[in-house]
Amino acid sequence: MSGNRVVEYMGPGEVAVNSIDYPKLEIPREVAEWLGVRPAAPHAVILKVVTTNICGSDQHMARGRTTAPVGQSLGHEILGEVVELGSDVLFLKEGDICSVPFNIACGRCRMCFEGKTGICLNVNPARPGAAYGYVDMGGWVGGQAEYVMVPFADFNLLKFPDRDQALEKIMDLTMLSDIFPTGYHGAYTAGVTTGSTVYVAGAGPVGLAAAHAAQLLGASVVIVGDMNTDRLRQAKSFGCETVDLSTGDALPDMIEQILGEPEVDAGVDAVGFEARGHGADAEEAPATVLNDMMTVARVGAGLGIPGLYVTGDPGAVDENAQVGQIGVRLGLGWAKSHSFATGQCPVKKYNRQLMNLILTDKAQIAKAVNATTIPLDEAPASYREFDQGAAKKYVIDPHGMTS
Amino acid sequence: MSGNRVVEYMGPGEVAVNSIDYPKLEIPREVAEWLGVRPAAPHAVILKVVTTNICGSDQHMARGRTTAPVGQSLGHEILGEVVELGSDVLFLKEGDICSVPFNIACGRCRMCFEGKTGICLNVNPARPGAAYGYVDMGGWVGGQAEYVMVPFADFNLLKFPDRDQALEKIMDLTMLSDIFPTGYHGAYTAGVTTGSTVYVAGAGPVGLAAAHAAQLLGASVVIVGDMNTDRLRQAKSFGCETVDLSTGDALPDMIEQILGEPEVDAGVDAVGFEARGHGADAEEAPATVLNDMMTVARVGAGLGIPGLYVTGDPGAVDENAQVGQIGVRLGLGWAKSHSFATGQCPVKKYNRQLMNLILTDKAQIAKAVNATTIPLDEAPASYREFDQGAAKKYVIDPHGMTS
Amino acid sequence: MSGNRVVEYMGPGEVAVNSIDYPKLEIPREVAEWLGVRPAAPHAVILKVVTTNICGSDQHMARGRTTAPVGQSLGHEILGEVVELGSDVLFLKEGDICSVPFNIACGRCRMCFEGKTGICLNVNPARPGAAYGYVDMGGWVGGQAEYVMVPFADFNLLKFPDRDQALEKIMDLTMLSDIFPTGYHGAYTAGVTTGSTVYVAGAGPVGLAAAHAAQLLGASVVIVGDMNTDRLRQAKSFGCETVDLSTGDALPDMIEQILGEPEVDAGVDAVGFEARGHGADAEEAPATVLNDMMTVARVGAGLGIPGLYVTGDPGAVDENAQVGQIGVRLGLGWAKSHSFATGQCPVKKYNRQLMNLILTDKAQIAKAVNATTIPLDEAPASYREFDQGAAKKYVIDPHGMTS
Amino acid sequence: MSGNRVVEYMGPGEVAVNSIDYPKLEIPREVAEWLGVRPAAPHAVILKVVTTNICGSDQHMARGRTTAPVGQSLGHEILGEVVELGSDVLFLKEGDICSVPFNIACGRCRMCFEGKTGICLNVNPARPGAAYGYVDMGGWVGGQAEYVMVPFADFNLLKFPDRDQALEKIMDLTMLSDIFPTGYHGAYTAGVTTGSTVYVAGAGPVGLAAAHAAQLLGASVVIVGDMNTDRLRQAKSFGCETVDLSTGDALPDMIEQILGEPEVDAGVDAVGFEARGHGADAEEAPATVLNDMMTVARVGAGLGIPGLYVTGDPGAVDENAQVGQIGVRLGLGWAKSHSFATGQCPVKKYNRQLMNLILTDKAQIAKAVNATTIPLDEAPASYREFDQGAAKKYVIDPHGMTS
Repeated sequence: MSGNRVVEYMGPGEVAVNSIDYPKLEIPREVAEWLGVRPAAPHAVILKVVTTNICGSDQHMARGRTTAPVGQSLGHEILGEVVELGSDVLFLKEGDICSVPFNIACGRCRMCFEGKTGICLNVNPARPGAAYGYVDMGGWVGGQAEYVMVPFADFNLLKFPDRDQALEKIMDLTMLSDIFPTGYHGAYTAGVTTGSTVYVAGAGPVGLAAAHAAQLLGASVVIVGDMNTDRLRQAKSFGCETVDLSTGDALPDMIEQILGEPEVDAGVDAVGFEARGHGADAEEAPATVLNDMMTVARVGAGLGIPGLYVTGDPGAVDENAQVGQIGVRLGLGWAKSHSFATGQCPVKKYNRQLMNLILTDKAQIAKAVNATTIPLDEAPASYREFDQGAAKKYVIDPHGMTS
Repeated sequence: MSGNRVVEYMGPGEVAVNSIDYPKLEIPREVAEWLGVRPAAPHAVILKVVTTNICGSDQHMARGRTTAPVGQSLGHEILGEVVELGSDVLFLKEGDICSVPFNIACGRCRMCFEGKTGICLNVNPARPGAAYGYVDMGGWVGGQAEYVMVPFADFNLLKFPDRDQALEKIMDLTMLSDIFPTGYHGAYTAGVTTGSTVYVAGAGPVGLAAAHAAQLLGASVVIVGDMNTDRLRQAKSFGCETVDLSTGDALPDMIEQILGEPEVDAGVDAVGFEARGHGADAEEAPATVLNDMMTVARVGAGLGIPGLYVTGDPGAVDENAQVGQIGVRLGLGWAKSHSFATGQCPVKKYNRQLMNLILTDKAQIAKAVNATTIPLDEAPASYREFDQGAAKKYVIDPHGMTS
Repeated sequence: MSGNRVVEYMGPGEVAVNSIDYPKLEIPREVAEWLGVRPAAPHAVILKVVTTNICGSDQHMARGRTTAPVGQSLGHEILGEVVELGSDVLFLKEGDICSVPFNIACGRCRMCFEGKTGICLNVNPARPGAAYGYVDMGGWVGGQAEYVMVPFADFNLLKFPDRDQALEKIMDLTMLSDIFPTGYHGAYTAGVTTGSTVYVAGAGPVGLAAAHAAQLLGASVVIVGDMNTDRLRQAKSFGCETVDLSTGDALPDMIEQILGEPEVDAGVDAVGFEARGHGADAEEAPATVLNDMMTVARVGAGLGIPGLYVTGDPGAVDENAQVGQIGVRLGLGWAKSHSFATGQCPVKKYNRQLMNLILTDKAQIAKAVNATTIPLDEAPASYREFDQGAAKKYVIDPHGMTS
Repeated sequence: MSGNRVVEYMGPGEVAVNSIDYPKLEIPREVAEWLGVRPAAPHAVILKVVTTNICGSDQHMARGRTTAPVGQSLGHEILGEVVELGSDVLFLKEGDICSVPFNIACGRCRMCFEGKTGICLNVNPARPGAAYGYVDMGGWVGGQAEYVMVPFADFNLLKFPDRDQALEKIMDLTMLSDIFPTGYHGAYTAGVTTGSTVYVAGAGPVGLAAAHAAQLLGASVVIVGDMNTDRLRQAKSFGCETVDLSTGDALPDMIEQILGEPEVDAGVDAVGFEARGHGADAEEAPATVLNDMMTVARVGAGLGIPGLYVTGDPGAVDENAQVGQIGVRLGLGWAKSHSFATGQCPVKKYNRQLMNLILTDKAQIAKAVNATTIPLDEAPASYREFDQGAAKKYVIDPHGMTS
């Protein structure tokens, strides 16, 4: 236990697995200084990482589309085994297998108490909200690693009730740290409920998770749109309808062919700011997805927006988009009395419920997102394949515990 | 009862009081044809108009900023006395004094049942939702008149419990048709509740009503921003804090001086698409207010948007704004996990509750918006004064019943 | 069309099919007099009954456990075809196939607008709320008949989008008038959501519908308790866990064997005031089910109570129960911070959503409640079989339209 | 700081101020053993008590109506100054003035995360939920003392923004630990909102707080019922209507005289299990208040029940009531589709909001409940006066800091 290996950003298009120090029970120095407290973290634990997934939002960094410095550690989708506990951790013990919400949260501030762990006030000097292994998120070390430190562990960790059962369903449970709750948050905040018809924009892992979540929330029909045929086939594999946006057909027409009407009850934007226009040679057009959704969502509908929109994007198509200002057809949404829900998913709000569905075989999230295990050393190759649109969700298994 | 007089749009900057036919118990021909039903309306009543207010949204038409044709009748804020009933009106009788929600609603469609009377599916061929005396809203005759026809009357009308009491409090009760519920809707959908700090953008009648509604919802501090000194003084008169946007000071700084922190719990946009930038010579800048609100609303906040955003605005500053597409800093809102509520207020959802507060002297809405009575013939002059920013709410009294 | 045949109560334990007049477009005289209006009902339609189910609450009357007079017409679970329309019915036409919510509602009062159609203020002189063919419910003629009159038809009727599709799925759609929404209401008001563990007391049709609804709401485990082996087997047939209350084992122990803990997240009382104690020779004990549920529901749980509790029950075990006063262990519920939801299901609040699930094959309610078709003349025999605990839901087909 | 003085129960009808040890940063031994953790509490602080109120529920113990042993320390309504901090307290510092919610909560369990701090799973071996100085609540030492230990302090304590401002408004702020949130919880869970008419049963401090809370939630009329003339006068003093239950008049009639109708929109039971029947010589009748409320609450109403109902009451009128089973007219509530909310108030859910209203002079809770300061040594006398129905709320000031 004298060291640790972690995936790090090494420059645009490049990540590598590097050696770093074994984690300590301490919060990042920058957070401690900002809070005016000592770094010592009696509330923290060290986890031996069992599985840790590659996320679409890691790609923003890997592509060089953020201000992440070389050496930024990566990884915020983590499931692990408790191997060391701080003196103020009361409700966990060594050997517990737990899911780690990607949002780091103190459990003691107003936002955490309101269930809004995605915007905790005490974990990031830059703004409310933090995550492991992410630029401008407080300097918490990433979890695409052998070991990782989790602060405020009694609050943050979701302990699985049985170790053997957990290891058996590990490929589903590993999705509880981010992708499954994030998809669920999108569908839930869009108001998906019993009998809803739903349009999910984007068939990447978040879109697929949102589509499966919509099914679990009782949707009658779930339609997924994308331009990538493999990803659409993946959506079809678990019972979704699909629309191929590369054909150039009008979206309302394609929806009408499925539903008999050109509108849906609820929409989920699982794409975000890197959206492109329709058709084969479509260019980046950051508000396209959102404007599409207002077009196809019926009056009074809710729109859930788990897809990421950023405040700064140096690589954006124009100077407005570079500061996160995009051309929204707000007049259309207003005329239709739409409501919009944005922001990071507060994972802890949903992960216990979704765990229950996995443990009773009611949810099949690993199959929905096409989970694929890889060893830690293959992470760099998998980053590249994912970037090229592979219809897979990569799960790193640093210790070979899942086979 | 052989005729009727009504305010009509006569071209940019001009309205007049003209004579038209006394209303019939019939729905507009264009609505009947679209629905495939006869115009006969046994569900309708004729009201003798007691009071009818001039609304900020009437000004959009009066200024020539819409596609309203010459001869468009005006007026959707109506309070009246039942003088004639259709054969399927069961729960009203002659002499009842009632408030008319500005939204015309059938009471029989999915949206009406969900309480969303602002987007009723059966009253307007152009799109869901209709109003009296408004362009592209189904051709229903306006209520700045002596008499007006109200369809689906059992559903739409709010009957006051006592005639004498109603006439005594008429200047407050006349605000129940639009302005008071619209302001309340803005504050309510923004999530204003016990103890909230609130920023209301705009001190016109909607903004003032939103501010008073925020007080009634239990806000601890309500801050109103505008560039018009008279309107700010009006806001101060009933206990609001104010910020003068014409000074050029930064809005967060002005809020911090009041609250000790630069952010509020909830924001209400009571301005809409005709927003201007800050400072004395500010130009029209349609997303300014919305972007301001994201700046000063805290993480996790709700933003209520009763201010009107349109799908088409021929007079807009640029071609994007002409089709209702504006430069929203969505990245900022997303980073702060904001949620946004838009659309016409469904008046019927709130008017009974607000009536109760007026009748028990708990709400003082006439005072808050500075209600001023005028005879019907003075309507044209009052349109001009309101357009020039008079800090008044004009109440037309066509039959001299309020004195 | 010169007559009509209807099921009527003929004395304790006896019902018969008798001839009555063909329905008129009129409301019952007692309702009209109370409202002070004419009986003429331009808002009404006549339906040719396609299917009409026997309900557990019909049994209270059939057994002679109510004050229903001899000659009381029966039947409130109705699905039919529009054959005649009043002059103020705008959104239906001849030939439409529709589901009839069992609650008669005016669509014009405060309660209807709030979605509480089970307690409409305008349809029953005795108290808010009415139903077809029920004692003390306003005198509306029952629908276990060839034809039936439905008032306020635009508001009350749920029209199916396609006639052929409707007739194909008729055995599921016929459950939309009462049993499926009532079960759903129980589960929904108990707070059942994604991942919940649920205990449903009673495996009669309401209990089975509540159990299926709980599945559709995303429950992880649904446990159904009863003393009737056939009904428990029926519950098992669609994926529920079951506990046999006739064994004398403690309920928490039986639940612990299934879940690993003795408590559930939510409870549904699908039994009501005719509850019996546990074990083979259990006597009537009206608060038993409710007290059981408080025992097995975890702290903070919601309890949904679709099972009927009455204000008067001449046949009750003691004089308190005869006036609807029963020995509730309120101290236990209070210590656990339980909340309780009671009352008739407002069918219209849910039937559209559940229809969507039926039409897309997401709900299998006919199978869950074991629907069985019979001709009108077999109704009396089926009443007897149901009373003896047959694990079936009888669907009367008066015109032979379902084969 | 070598000792501590605290109010203790000394036998039926008797309390005294006794000396005990100065508090340690440790949780009670019985809790530690049950949890399987060490007593050391790095998450705790020691407070110097600034104010601590006598509560109606203390009287249950003082009267000998519970199983509290002689020597039971008392007091759970506490406001204090931080004088010592554990090593894992990050967001407080010495000198902070804070309100202590009476519910002790860990901030790390499922219930705390759901906002249900009244039923925390980790603080009481006997059942979920705990409080300071209360029988069967985990053995936490009471706060009617000079000093008190508060565990999980970052989570539990509400810090006031400014020390001087806090001391200035101390008589209002001291109500944030229990009485004000408890009253608010009753009104809030009853569904009181803009324009509601409300009936509050009981004009003791909880009832008065509920009445004031109802006003703050926007009620149009608040009616308070009691048999004690002084307490009714107190209710009248801040704008409530009152009904005197000792007159023998029927409650619906008295309500009709005030409102013009015999029913209200929402009801609050601020009495609980020690209820008495009406009239001058009324006997204890534990379900009277609840049954009254069902009588006067309109259909569809919510009933909030902050009044305490217990699972065991050795002094009750009959053997059913001794185990908390009481004769509820559930049939009446069911016929009216009532919903019922029970349980301890989760203070932390509301105290920040209510603090905001106090600090901006929007709430006058001290005046509403008639707060009266006493030194610690006068506590025994005040217990007696309160038991005799004094219309006062006693606030103990152990260090003379409030003058």
